[in-house]
Amino acid sequence: MKRSIYLKSTDIEDAKRIFHDALNSVYQKKHTETVQTEYAYGRVIAQPIYARRSVPFYPSSAMDGIAIDSAKTKNANEHKPLLLDPSDYIEVDTGDPILDPYDCVIMAEDCIHSDSGVSIIKPHVPWENVRPIGEDVTEGELLFSMEHVLRPMDISVLIAANQLSIEVYKKVSIAIIPTGTEIRSAYEPISVGDIVESNSYLFTGLALLAQALPTTYPIVKDDFSEIKHTVEDAVSKHDVVIINAGSSAGRDDYTVHVISELGKVLVHGLSIKPGKPAILGLVGDVPVIGIPGFPVSAHIVFEEFVTPLLLKLNHYPIPHVDRIEAYSTRRIVSSLKSKEYIRVKIGYIHDRYVATPLARGAGMMMSVVKSDGYALIEKNREGVDFNEMMDVQLNKPIQQIKHTLLAIGSHDLIMDVISNLFEQSTFPYHCSSVHIGSYAGLLALSRKESALAMTHLLESDGSYNTHTVKKLFPSEKVVMIKGVKRIQGLIVEKGNPKNIHTIEDLLRIRFINRQRGAGTRVLLDHWLNQKNINPESIVGYNKELTTHLAVAAAVANNVADCGLGIQSAATIMGCDFIPLGLEDYDFVCYADFLNDPLMMLFLTIIRSDEFKNICKSLGGYDTSESGEVRIYD
Amino acid sequence: MKRSIYLKSTDIEDAKRIFHDALNSVYQKKHTETVQTEYAYGRVIAQPIYARRSVPFYPSSAMDGIAIDSAKTKNANEHKPLLLDPSDYIEVDTGDPILDPYDCVIMAEDCIHSDSGVSIIKPHVPWENVRPIGEDVTEGELLFSMEHVLRPMDISVLIAANQLSIEVYKKVSIAIIPTGTEIRSAYEPISVGDIVESNSYLFTGLALLAQALPTTYPIVKDDFSEIKHTVEDAVSKHDVVIINAGSSAGRDDYTVHVISELGKVLVHGLSIKPGKPAILGLVGDVPVIGIPGFPVSAHIVFEEFVTPLLLKLNHYPIPHVDRIEAYSTRRIVSSLKSKEYIRVKIGYIHDRYVATPLARGAGMMMSVVKSDGYALIEKNREGVDFNEMMDVQLNKPIQQIKHTLLAIGSHDLIMDVISNLFEQSTFPYHCSSVHIGSYAGLLALSRKESALAMTHLLESDGSYNTHTVKKLFPSEKVVMIKGVKRIQGLIVEKGNPKNIHTIEDLLRIRFINRQRGAGTRVLLDHWLNQKNINPESIVGYNKELTTHLAVAAAVANNVADCGLGIQSAATIMGCDFIPLGLEDYDFVCYADFLNDPLMMLFLTIIRSDEFKNICKSLGGYDTSESGEVRIYD
Repeated sequence: MKRSIYLKSTDIEDAKRIFHDALNSVYQKKHTETVQTEYAYGRVIAQPIYARRSVPFYPSSAMDGIAIDSAKTKNANEHKPLLLDPSDYIEVDTGDPILDPYDCVIMAEDCIHSDSGVSIIKPHVPWENVRPIGEDVTEGELLFSMEHVLRPMDISVLIAANQLSIEVYKKVSIAIIPTGTEIRSAYEPISVGDIVESNSYLFTGLALLAQALPTTYPIVKDDFSEIKHTVEDAVSKHDVVIINAGSSAGRDDYTVHVISELGKVLVHGLSIKPGKPAILGLVGDVPVIGIPGFPVSAHIVFEEFVTPLLLKLNHYPIPHVDRIEAYSTRRIVSSLKSKEYIRVKIGYIHDRYVATPLARGAGMMMSVVKSDGYALIEKNREGVDFNEMMDVQLNKPIQQIKHTLLAIGSHDLIMDVISNLFEQSTFPYHCSSVHIGSYAGLLALSRKESALAMTHLLESDGSYNTHTVKKLFPSEKVVMIKGVKRIQGLIVEKGNPKNIHTIEDLLRIRFINRQRGAGTRVLLDHWLNQKNINPESIVGYNKELTTHLAVAAAVANNVADCGLGIQSAATIMGCDFIPLGLEDYDFVCYADFLNDPLMMLFLTIIRSDEFKNICKSLGGYDTSESGEVRIYD
Repeated sequence: MKRSIYLKSTDIEDAKRIFHDALNSVYQKKHTETVQTEYAYGRVIAQPIYARRSVPFYPSSAMDGIAIDSAKTKNANEHKPLLLDPSDYIEVDTGDPILDPYDCVIMAEDCIHSDSGVSIIKPHVPWENVRPIGEDVTEGELLFSMEHVLRPMDISVLIAANQLSIEVYKKVSIAIIPTGTEIRSAYEPISVGDIVESNSYLFTGLALLAQALPTTYPIVKDDFSEIKHTVEDAVSKHDVVIINAGSSAGRDDYTVHVISELGKVLVHGLSIKPGKPAILGLVGDVPVIGIPGFPVSAHIVFEEFVTPLLLKLNHYPIPHVDRIEAYSTRRIVSSLKSKEYIRVKIGYIHDRYVATPLARGAGMMMSVVKSDGYALIEKNREGVDFNEMMDVQLNKPIQQIKHTLLAIGSHDLIMDVISNLFEQSTFPYHCSSVHIGSYAGLLALSRKESALAMTHLLESDGSYNTHTVKKLFPSEKVVMIKGVKRIQGLIVEKGNPKNIHTIEDLLRIRFINRQRGAGTRVLLDHWLNQKNINPESIVGYNKELTTHLAVAAAVANNVADCGLGIQSAATIMGCDFIPLGLEDYDFVCYADFLNDPLMMLFLTIIRSDEFKNICKSLGGYDTSESGEVRIYD
């Protein structure tokens, strides 16, 4: 099949309208089923429901006590207690019926028991402490309107009101068809060139959240007729079908051809980024959606089109999404031709929200996982300036963002340890770290984009994190919180086959570097300078990675022979480690923030034995000063 | 067993502390299980998870295009396109591996196809459009910290990173033991004196929401040894046990004795209302909670003690609950000895929240169902004044409250019809009505406690809803929105066995009346006055019910022979109806509120054919003026 590289580019709002209009007859159909009420938690009722029995359905005692004819109590008073004739009353418990000749209940607390019997000291009135028929629920009363989502309390009321089975909307079924000759199930052996089929698990989970019933088909090869037969089968058995991927316009992208042969393509190509190569179609009465293959594109297209469709067909209310306005911590360039969805990390710093953009590639799913939501940059906008306000659609409750300590700066594995210890604490607080290097982290702190900076900057006098901080925060009160001393060294392949031991050895091997501004790189440059080595003479000096682990992984995978980093990263990736020297990995924050509850928990954690023991087991750390606060003067 | 009527009264915060301290060793135990990742949606991970494979795990193409050695492109430029040697490149699709000798991908859009082959017009650089190994996920990278609740996107990342099974916390199991000799399953035949077991369905649903696994035992009679054996069995098989009810101190209340014989009673009796007769206990390592029998008490005790316990044992985060401060529309008297949970209906009227208290009985579950949350009145507080601020814990998102049109006033079934039509609309708006009678509804509107009043007040000149409105809103701009004309008449038993036809007939039968201020009662008084009948000579004139349906239900159940009401209520309850006259059931609101989106939807609905057709099918309504707006001048 010839490559046809042209996709249209329909505005997302137009696409939604076109799709919605085309589905009008689908929306009109009412698919319901009768279910036993006791299993109907979370279901949506399809008919108004009326009570079939009153609660209570007989006059009943509201108290433990005695039932009596109130007329027989009228002569009682405090000065002359009335001894009751035992044949005039019966003992009753809460809920017991109060029938002729009784018309009231005297609470146990108001009955005086003695050897001669029960006395009372005041008259009682008819229906005192008696629940009339239908006090709670009246037979015939409307209990719930249509479209109501049944909560636990509703189910118990329905059972009490003798509505034991009810008509609810059927859950919509959705077929998920993974396609692609190179796609393999996660349970098959995988080799170079294979791509693991993981998107269906994203779709399945999102469909379940939208109260739908998902079914994933076996992976279909890039073959027009195989895809066509699978789609035919799926539309005959399901309410909604999605095809992933082949929705673009490449050599093997058959989705659009299959849909147009079986039904109608409504939209092919959206002016959004990521997510452009999407298809909205209809086969008979079944919406068929072609979803792009890159996971971030897939996520956006599913959430924008499939989730709302499933909720609507399920008559389920659209869940509320928190939206905020946040200041961008970066200049972001955006395409004029597309609405852009920028993954962002949100900080709530000094009473304002700041948004730091994360990786933008359509294949970078971890940046979605790590994000707090999408900043939306409308089409026809060139981008967003530093410190300009952006609309952000959060993927978690706003409360959680406010309860998160945002730390930005240099990477170390102890940040993961600290984050885990936050989660294990009894407080609803979280710690989230973003890794952009020491100097950039301090800059972020100075711009109030973070609550805490992690830094290991070697100063010209051999001290750590001193002069730079004073220069960046000349008139402001900041403090240093001692973190850990850690061993930096050379990460080399297991067994050290290239026999690397010193900085000089870097001249004869393939090196992998850290990004500019990273403390580890500053340390390397310091050592290179001491030895008068020209950085440019090292192969790979300009190849940059942003974390210790990424460097260790590159060495483990033989992409490079050696990198500079910390011992724990080498250990985790199964590499050998040549120690070269100790350095200080510290924290910096504004002094007035030390009293914030989030910060107090942070200090408690890094001073704890638990933290120190975990560092010890990771190896390469000295925690003797962890948590000490130093004032800059 | 002797009745021992004394319960202690422990402050709820003290009770929580005592319970929490006693459970310390229970919390320390870590119960985990290994599950297949693909089924782990919503589970909480019990160990940090690291990637077991990079994504991508080979350098791969980020685009559809051609793979080439970038060195072979350096001579291309716009003026002199470079025709590529077909042996120098291969066609690649997105995701294909880019291996030696290729090091870059030229996008399909940058390739010029002609009969002689593929040409390019600019040089390309190494790794252009190539995703490096680990671009998304690096092998060994920490993917998720402990205590993370797995979302759909997390599952897909775990699958891609080759983590196919993971260690998660076990879901906690909870045994629900319903007790009571008078308690019957909803599926058994029910007669007077029986109480339908419905609380277990409330507990089951709440336990499921707290991610627990509930099991309900068969109903146990009020028998010490039967209850004891059942509890022994339950604690041997479950993590948490609740016993409902028998938690008070009455004749047949064995729960406290059973718990103290098998284990330890920590707290018996709470200073909360409703919910006082609760028991917190521990049998071995299993928390055992005695829950009161009245459904509202049961709901409060479960939510205050059991839900947080289940969430904590499940390592599940406490869901955020919206809390607001709202002005009370009533004076509320509260017990000095107890913290009170007052069910309230919330209105968001003219930018402030107002809270109207609902029925307070511990047996009134429908008032929980209809409520928007609990207003909390602390112990030692005498109550809350009219217009005083209260703390309210909402049971729904605050957004939903803001999107709800709150209508207060006279009852008519068309309010249910309107509410249904709101739900069926494409807008996320709701209509909620509270029924307190016409005059009280107008008063509520005048105090800005509602957005809309429903009224059918007969004026002295025979008109409806005119002079009273002018008197209550002398200087304010309000408008009348015509509702329906409806037939009021006598609701009598099927077949009219008492042969009732006129107002005079009421003198010889058992009547059931509506509450003071209800328009229907005003109409009755008007007719009685016309005929010179003394109301007090009618048996049942002082017996009051608050809705048309309740009146019809009373007649249908032979509690009374006749009541005044509307035809639709008679029809629904299977009663006969003797029409007496037409009346106007109208709406009143502030003029400036007509432009509110909620109000615009309301007008759209009551002017629609759909609304009018439903009224027609109910019978007894004239909708010819529905939705007309009349200005008071």
